[in-house]
Amino acid sequence: MQDDFSQQEKNGLYKAIHSRRDVRAQFKHDSIPDDVLLRILDAAHHAPSVGFSQPWNFILIKDLETRRKVRESFERERERSSQLIDDPKRSRYLSLKLEGIMDAPVNLCVTYDPTRFGPFVIGRTSIPETGVYSVCCAIQNLWLAARAEGVGVGWVSILDNDDLREILQIPEHIVPIAYLCMGYVTHFEGKPDLERAGWLPRLPLNDVIYFEKWGASEGNGWQKLQRKLNGS
Amino acid sequence: MQDDFSQQEKNGLYKAIHSRRDVRAQFKHDSIPDDVLLRILDAAHHAPSVGFSQPWNFILIKDLETRRKVRESFERERERSSQLIDDPKRSRYLSLKLEGIMDAPVNLCVTYDPTRFGPFVIGRTSIPETGVYSVCCAIQNLWLAARAEGVGVGWVSILDNDDLREILQIPEHIVPIAYLCMGYVTHFEGKPDLERAGWLPRLPLNDVIYFEKWGASEGNGWQKLQRKLNGS
Repeated sequence: MQDDFSQQEKNGLYKAIHSRRDVRAQFKHDSIPDDVLLRILDAAHHAPSVGFSQPWNFILIKDLETRRKVRESFERERERSSQLIDDPKRSRYLSLKLEGIMDAPVNLCVTYDPTRFGPFVIGRTSIPETGVYSVCCAIQNLWLAARAEGVGVGWVSILDNDDLREILQIPEHIVPIAYLCMGYVTHFEGKPDLERAGWLPRLPLNDVIYFEKWGASEGNGWQKLQRKLNGS
Repeated sequence: MQDDFSQQEKNGLYKAIHSRRDVRAQFKHDSIPDDVLLRILDAAHHAPSVGFSQPWNFILIKDLETRRKVRESFERERERSSQLIDDPKRSRYLSLKLEGIMDAPVNLCVTYDPTRFGPFVIGRTSIPETGVYSVCCAIQNLWLAARAEGVGVGWVSILDNDDLREILQIPEHIVPIAYLCMGYVTHFEGKPDLERAGWLPRLPLNDVIYFEKWGASEGNGWQKLQRKLNGS
């Protein structure tokens, strides 16, 4: 089974992983054909889920009035969060483009239903949060499929979930997990926006890997391999 | 940008998404070469993260004694959770193979560090859970890359996180998110284990999609498209 993916198939997966971006600024207005949208949602639906509970729902939003309300929630939350920091960081924060709610032709709210196939869900009894984790895996599948289809996705998390519940009529027991903006783009940037803006650097892979227990690194061999991987 | 993926590259991504399995039973003992493991971890490290916070760590575990302790935690939790259901469901539950901790050559604990690049992380101020969501996206990247490399991954969630903290010396402020078993496999099953066992069915995609607001389905056009997608 080690070679059931051709080199081109492997490349396709890695290309999606490495060229996927959190898109805020390059949306085109062209609509996404239904069959493309459906392939992307089907990819999400084939994510792993704890106890095969498939606890996700996808609310597709195109209505302008709905999106305007969501954008207002974003604006309130952005203003509120900017109070947590001082200038010059605050001004820089407020100058960043952080959402494409009105620019992207499709918005998508992904939700978690803790009651799906419950109450006993295999594998969710010790760590109940695993239900939410499944929904996040679905979102990542969706993001990668969208990338391969040329569709940009931006996750807007500067929002009040109570606003989302009210705007989208989401029941009390359902948890909004992600609010995504989707659309074709003029281009995908080579690096994440916040890396390009010099806000934060990408960590060396070696810094986040430990061996056998927390905090134990294992120097040279892996560092060498990593340099090889980076082509340097 | 709509056609920057060749059909073969797209196929590679979708093949990984649709043939990925949560593996418990088919592990081979062959070790995973470091360069393969590194490509898989690098895929995880290129996941999206809120505010580019990259809040993950990866603890690679091969030590048998460590794994034996983790397996004991699994056994205690499985026994405990089985008390929540009655026969015949309980017996069926206990007969399922739910982990490959000792079978797989590599175990991996993925953790979340809420302090990484904090306290102000862009996009995490309104919905603090988005930090954990980033780690889950990384896990799904890892899972897909592993599949393309022929490496099976099984997520063991029937565990006590306090046991994990103690066994792996994880500090109090770090949150264990996933405990994964990884290794080459004899084969990947065509369907999820719990679907094959008749425990739960896969939901029709149409059942989890709403339009404009919660609960609003939009019948026929999408159902037709879905049948086309399913090749029926």
